[in-house]
Parts: sequence; structure tokens; C-alpha cells
Amino acid sequence: MKISQTLSSIIALIITFTFPLNSFAQQAQPYTYAPKLTEELNQLKLAAMTSDYAYRQTAYLCNNIGARLSGSPQAARAVEYVADEMRKQGFAVQLEKCKVPHWVRGAETGELIEFNGQAPSTTQKIVLTALGGSVATPAEGLTAEVIVVDDYAALNALGRDKVAGKIVLFNAKFDMRMAMQGEGGSAYGQAVAYRGGGASAAARLGAVAALNRSAGGGIRLPHTGGVRYDDNLAKIPAAAVTAEDAELMAYLVKQGKVRMRLTLTPQTFPDVESYNVIADLKGSEHPEQVVIVSGHLDSWDLGTGAHDDAVGVAAAMATAYLIKQLGLKPRRTIRVIAWMSEEPGLQGASAYATTHQADVANHIAAIEIDLGAGHPLGILGHASNRAMAMLQPLSGILQSIGAPIVRQTPGSPSSDITMLDFLGVPTFAPFQDSRFYFNYHHTPADTLDKVNPQELAENTAVMAVLAYAIASLPEVLPRQ
Amino acid sequence: MKISQTLSSIIALIITFTFPLNSFAQQAQPYTYAPKLTEELNQLKLAAMTSDYAYRQTAYLCNNIGARLSGSPQAARAVEYVADEMRKQGFAVQLEKCKVPHWVRGAETGELIEFNGQAPSTTQKIVLTALGGSVATPAEGLTAEVIVVDDYAALNALGRDKVAGKIVLFNAKFDMRMAMQGEGGSAYGQAVAYRGGGASAAARLGAVAALNRSAGGGIRLPHTGGVRYDDNLAKIPAAAVTAEDAELMAYLVKQGKVRMRLTLTPQTFPDVESYNVIADLKGSEHPEQVVIVSGHLDSWDLGTGAHDDAVGVAAAMATAYLIKQLGLKPRRTIRVIAWMSEEPGLQGASAYATTHQADVANHIAAIEIDLGAGHPLGILGHASNRAMAMLQPLSGILQSIGAPIVRQTPGSPSSDITMLDFLGVPTFAPFQDSRFYFNYHHTPADTLDKVNPQELAENTAVMAVLAYAIASLPEVLPRQ
Repeated sequence: MKISQTLSSIIALIITFTFPLNSFAQQAQPYTYAPKLTEELNQLKLAAMTSDYAYRQTAYLCNNIGARLSGSPQAARAVEYVADEMRKQGFAVQLEKCKVPHWVRGAETGELIEFNGQAPSTTQKIVLTALGGSVATPAEGLTAEVIVVDDYAALNALGRDKVAGKIVLFNAKFDMRMAMQGEGGSAYGQAVAYRGGGASAAARLGAVAALNRSAGGGIRLPHTGGVRYDDNLAKIPAAAVTAEDAELMAYLVKQGKVRMRLTLTPQTFPDVESYNVIADLKGSEHPEQVVIVSGHLDSWDLGTGAHDDAVGVAAAMATAYLIKQLGLKPRRTIRVIAWMSEEPGLQGASAYATTHQADVANHIAAIEIDLGAGHPLGILGHASNRAMAMLQPLSGILQSIGAPIVRQTPGSPSSDITMLDFLGVPTFAPFQDSRFYFNYHHTPADTLDKVNPQELAENTAVMAVLAYAIASLPEVLPRQ
Repeated sequence: MKISQTLSSIIALIITFTFPLNSFAQQAQPYTYAPKLTEELNQLKLAAMTSDYAYRQTAYLCNNIGARLSGSPQAARAVEYVADEMRKQGFAVQLEKCKVPHWVRGAETGELIEFNGQAPSTTQKIVLTALGGSVATPAEGLTAEVIVVDDYAALNALGRDKVAGKIVLFNAKFDMRMAMQGEGGSAYGQAVAYRGGGASAAARLGAVAALNRSAGGGIRLPHTGGVRYDDNLAKIPAAAVTAEDAELMAYLVKQGKVRMRLTLTPQTFPDVESYNVIADLKGSEHPEQVVIVSGHLDSWDLGTGAHDDAVGVAAAMATAYLIKQLGLKPRRTIRVIAWMSEEPGLQGASAYATTHQADVANHIAAIEIDLGAGHPLGILGHASNRAMAMLQPLSGILQSIGAPIVRQTPGSPSSDITMLDFLGVPTFAPFQDSRFYFNYHHTPADTLDKVNPQELAENTAVMAVLAYAIASLPEVLPRQ
């Protein structure tokens, strides 16, 4: 999950929690499904709950391919794998081009080389990782004094005199209590403001490098993510240090001068051509009308992108697979999309929106999973009251797996589908328990073992049932 | 905490749990303390609970000095710091020599370079760390096929034909459920059998390197510890991979051939001279009689040795400090010992036992904290029934901090005091909640922020109250 584009949806979620549950239902006509559709949806739910297809896809992406950083050979291999697998299952597959960044992580080390009390000729090692897109330090590293600030106000209060020539650490804490109350998105949004914008804010005052305290709940694990440089300012190296190392540095700078050697040697190459993978299960009555099920195929490179977002791609693949296996015939086309290059900046999603702009009216809905595979409580949708009312019967169908909530949000509930949302397409995502997601994603800990197969099956069931309902109802989901 | 020497005490703990609580008390005379002693002990408990002295010592050792690997400049600086601080507080300080290993970690990387499904010219990165004392691979690494076994039986069943030339991964799982039931020591003992002995078991069958699955509950964090080479066999490089990486390798070898490149470049230098730091608060009536309070000053090098074992040294220092601050006059000498080189093999403890063998009869008791600073439930002691009965009144004094259990163990309850235990000295440790200790110790996560100041104060209170009671009772604690 990338934050800049999803901030609006996160804010949306917060606002939503203040709405009474099902408020829209009171404003709209009750809606009922034909018995045959209800039976098919129950069949599909059961199939999703008992199939290991999604888990096997997740495992292949994580273990057999590995980290799938945009522009990397692994990302290319993942495109090939998903396309092959979907073709093998009998779907119409297209690869749609997009240009993506090609940034490659290098060496990354940090040491405090001067601090109060240190043993002769020793250092304190700082665990850190370059932010995606960061420029490099000199190969031999750069050495400078460290200053620590809690926020932009504190940085600006110091002014150029005290910041120029220094390494700035933004020590904004991820609020784990907020995350554990289900407000992980809000806690994350607060913490990553400095990840995206810290480097340019520091460069504006002459700093030579910017560090931010890792977001999330990782234990001595750094949390990467993209840096956003202001083109009008010097680009300075940017890295995330672990929470522990941020604490250490904050502790030591209070006692006296702290100097650090920072070495980051990532390389930025020219953009490369990559692809969104698109696989269609054609609709029986309205093949031109499309319901998207999706996740993003690229990942960060520290872990193997299990929760972020192999599970989303796998659930989307499983949705089409299971519908086909059951011999169900949706009226409209179910379109699996494995989005490319979500993390560096939604390049795949942008390319799709551009390519399909003329056809956007035929995009009936877009669904994505990009908040891991924690237990789903139900469905989030940014759609008209009438559309939400049409989906209310899913509450009864999904109740048996603990996912009965059908909740309207004031913005897109997921990242890659935000552009379609802006174009008026109703957008949906499972409403997920994200308390633990923020311990793993963007860190080395985002690996297959963190995925609970049962919870992945529940998410697959929600995605499949939702997509099949939208694709099979007699009436098209009405727009706002 | 080092395991080999504490296995007996861990087994002891297990056996102990089958004894009825306070069984010894029923066999011995009830014992009461003079009102003045009781009052002093309550005073000392309160002082420990409200002082930040122990926490400040822990912080200095972790943050201002850092990791204190035996033989390193930081370990030497720690000796100097503790000696200076104890002198400053007015204690009689001696440095007692010991020879310690000098092993220095180098580069350490692992990649799977051949596995089913991989993208062209890509690898899966394996997160690992060299075991303390490991020999190096060639500088450019070694490359070999990986085989995965769950235990020694499985390794031996494969035989030399299938093991020779391979890298062996011992995939023994740390039982987190056991740890969370308070049986962390048992879970740990099971898991680290392969850390200590795996390399030689694999070398016996011709393997070229040995890996073990990290013990403990770290999340994508490797867990180091010492390897024990059999001098009659080839010494092969030995490293611990994270639990996640062990899972990945086990998954991939089931699908086909997996080859790995392993690079470890640690260096072993000649043993160096180091020191146990000894600081005495002289007894008012029997200065020749000694009650030891202690922790070990060296640590592993991945974290900063906060729970293992800065807290033990700090609680011992605080015990003497607080007794002196309160103006209390113990009958017998309270001796603070910061043991050197516990982790590589108890070199400091051995040297002390040798040096003081003639005087061992004057060692009335030895107390150590070396299981972190989790909340203490009470006191564990390997001592005579009569001695345990003499300490039973501490139950009432420590009840208010949740530490009322006074429990006899059939072996030394801590590592560095095991040799004194063998010589007949009664040995004690706080009975600690160790559920979380095994998530941190020996990993990069063992840093100051993991220490709860309140719980450290509780441990200090237990150590101080216990030591002062033993040093102040009219009667010497009787031996077995």
C-alpha cells in the first residue's frame, strides 16, 4: 500500500466510522437477490473457503519468485507467471504496457562515529534502509552531525543555521495504540508524512541527508517506502532507521554531539517497460461491461511482498478461477488485474486509466485488496447509496465468515483503483482487520509465513462473492 | 544467557515446577527476622522501586558503550566504566584478570542462487548471522546445495553420501507456545542444541557449512550464540538463519534442488586479557564473608546487550549503591561482580572460581540476574532446606511487588554462578517472567527500549532485599 494516493481514502475511513452503520440502507429501497444468485454466491463462498488456490499463488509469488520491485527481473517474472497461469486456466489474457521506475538498492550502512561515552575507535551501528528512489551518498559514505526533530515545525524552528550540513532525523513515532484500535491507516499516515516529504524539507534548509523513524511495529526492522523529492530542491539521500535506532540517536544527541557516517549506494536507471496483467472471464450477457478484481504485483524489496500485495493478486486470480471451476456464468466480465508499479507511484494504474478512459462507462466496479490478508469484517465501498443498498444482501451471505459489514466510504477504499474512482467507477475493498499489517509491510518481515491461509480464504471469499454479485445482478450498479 | 552451562538449571526449573510450593518450608523450622531487619528490608525495597540508578547504568552500558562482545574495545570500556562508577560510589574495586576469546564478526550474506521458479539471474536473500566462534568461508563465499533436516536423527539417516559437500540447515523450531507458558528455557534448550552442536554433527558427515533456524521469537531477526566445535572434526562455518528464511528454504527444497552462496568472514584472534570487575561493600562484622550480587558485562554484538545482560550488572551495582545510600550496614560483605565473557564460555566465572577456590567457604551465597528484566515472581535458590526456610520471610516482604514465591531448585539458577554452585555455594536468582526475553536476547532487538524501567526496579528490589537479608541475618546461610 502506498500512502500518498490512499490518504484520501484513509481519511474517508475515519469519517465513515462516524456514520451509523447501514445509514444508506435506510435511504434506499430494500433489495433482494434471486434465489439462484443467492445459491451461487453461497456456493462460491464455500469454494473460496475450502480452496488453497489463492494461498498457492501467494506462495509462488513470494517463495519461487521473491521480492518484485518495480523494474526488476523478479517483477518481469511475476508478470510472466500470472499471465501464464491465467492463460492455463482458460482466461483471455492481455499485457498492457506501462513505463515504470527502475531503482536498485545498494549497500546501506550507518554508524555513529562520535557520541558521548563511546569506547575508543568504536561505533554504534545504526540499522537503516534507503527509501525507494533515494539518491546515493558518495560510495565511501558521508559523515555529518546528526540533529533530531519530532516534526516539521521543530525543523523549521531550528532554521538554516542549525540544519545546514547536518543529517536530519525525523523522529515521528508510529502510534501503535492507534493501530491496535483498528486505526492503523491513520497512525501510518501520520508517521509516513516524513518518509515522503522529509528529504526535501531538510534539503530546503541545507541538510546533507534525511532519516526518518520507521513506521509500523517492526522490531529492529527498517520500513522502506518511497521518497518524494521536490524538483526545485537538492535531492539528498534519504533512509529509514529502525525505531530502536531513532530512540538511541535521540538519547545520545541530548548528551552531546553525535556524528554519523551514512553510506547508501542505490542506483536509479532509466524507466523500463513493464505491464499490468489483465485476464478476463467474459460475461455471458454483457461482455463489454467489466467488474475488476485486483491487487498489485510489484512489491518493495526487503521482504517478499506477501501481505503487500501478493495476497491481493492471488485473491483476484482465485476469484476468476473459482467462478470458472464452479461453472458459474456471470452476466458481465470479471476482469483480473495484477497492477504493476503501485509502490513507486501507481504507474500501472495510471496507464490503465489513460488507456481505458474512453471505455470507462463500461467499468461497472473496481475491487482491490491492498491492506494485507487480515480477517475481513465485510465490505467497504465508495459508491452511490443505491449501489450500496443493492449489495446489502451480501451481509447475510458473508455473515457466516464474520464479514457482515457493508459500509460506504467517502473515497476510494484502495490505492490502484483510486484513478478509476476519480473517473466515477464505484470502488470496493474488503474491510480488513489491519492491526498486524503495519508490523510487516515494507519491512523484511513481509514474508509468506505471516499470511494466515484461513484469513486469506476469507478475503478471497469476500472479493469473489462481491465481484460475482455485481457481475450477475440484473441491474447495473448505479453511479453517484 | 549461555545455554550449555545453564541447561542443568533449566532442567532443574522444570523439575521444580512439579514440587509443591514451599515444600521445603514444611520440612524446616519456621524462621523469623528481627523487626529492625524487616524494617531495613522494606526500606531497601522501597528505595529500589523508586530509584532510577539501575536504569541509568543499563542505559549507559547500552547506549553510550554499546554491544560488549568479549575481547572487544567496548567490553574493555565497560570494565573501565563499571570500575570507575563503583569507585566513585565509594566501594573497594578490584579488577581480576581472565583470558577471553577475541572473535570479530565480518561480512555475512546468504543467497539462494538456484531454486525452482526463480526469475533469471535473481536470488532470494537469506537473512543470517554467523555464530560466535564460527570459522570463515572463503572471502568470496562458498556455494553448495542445501539440505534441510529437522533433527540429528534425520541428518544421520541421510548418511555421508547425501550430506558430504552440502550446506546443512537444522530446522528445529523454537516452541513459542512453550515459551509463552513460562517454559522459555525449555523451548530454548531444545532449539539451541543445533546451534551449539550442529556444525560438528554436519562436519562428521562431510558437510561444508551448517545453518540453524534461529531460536526465540524474533521476526526476521537472526539469533546468534556460540558454536561448539568438536576438536577431532573439521571446523565448518556456522550461521543462524531467521525462522522465515528457514521456512523458505524448507519450502523450496521440497520442490527441487536449492543451491546457496554463503559468505561469512569473521576473524578469530588470540585470546586477550580482560577482567571481572569486583566492588565490595565491606561487612560490618564479617567482612571476610561474601554475598555476591552479579550479572555479566559482556554481551553478543548484534544488539546492545540490554536484557542480556546489562540489566543484571546494573541491578547488582544498584544493590550496593542503594544499601550504601540508605546507610545500611550489612554484617557480611556485599560483593558486586560484573562477570566477563559469559557468552563465549564463562571465562570470567571460571577464573574467579579458580582464584577464590581457597576462600570458597567464605562465599555465603551468589546471586545473579541473567534472564533479562521481566517481572520477578520471587526468588529461586539452589540451597539447603534450612537456607530456603531462612529466606521464607522474604515472601512477605516481596509480596507487595508481586514477587512472593521462594522456590528451591535442584541446580544453579543462573549461569556465571554455576561454578560456585558446584563448589557448594548456595546460588540464587530472581524467578523471572521470561516470556518475552526469548524474543530479544542474542538478536539485534536486544536494545534499551525493551527494558521496562518498572520491571527492572522490581528485579533490583528482589536482588537487593535477598542479598541484604543473607548478609545481615545473625546466622550464616547453611550449606547442604
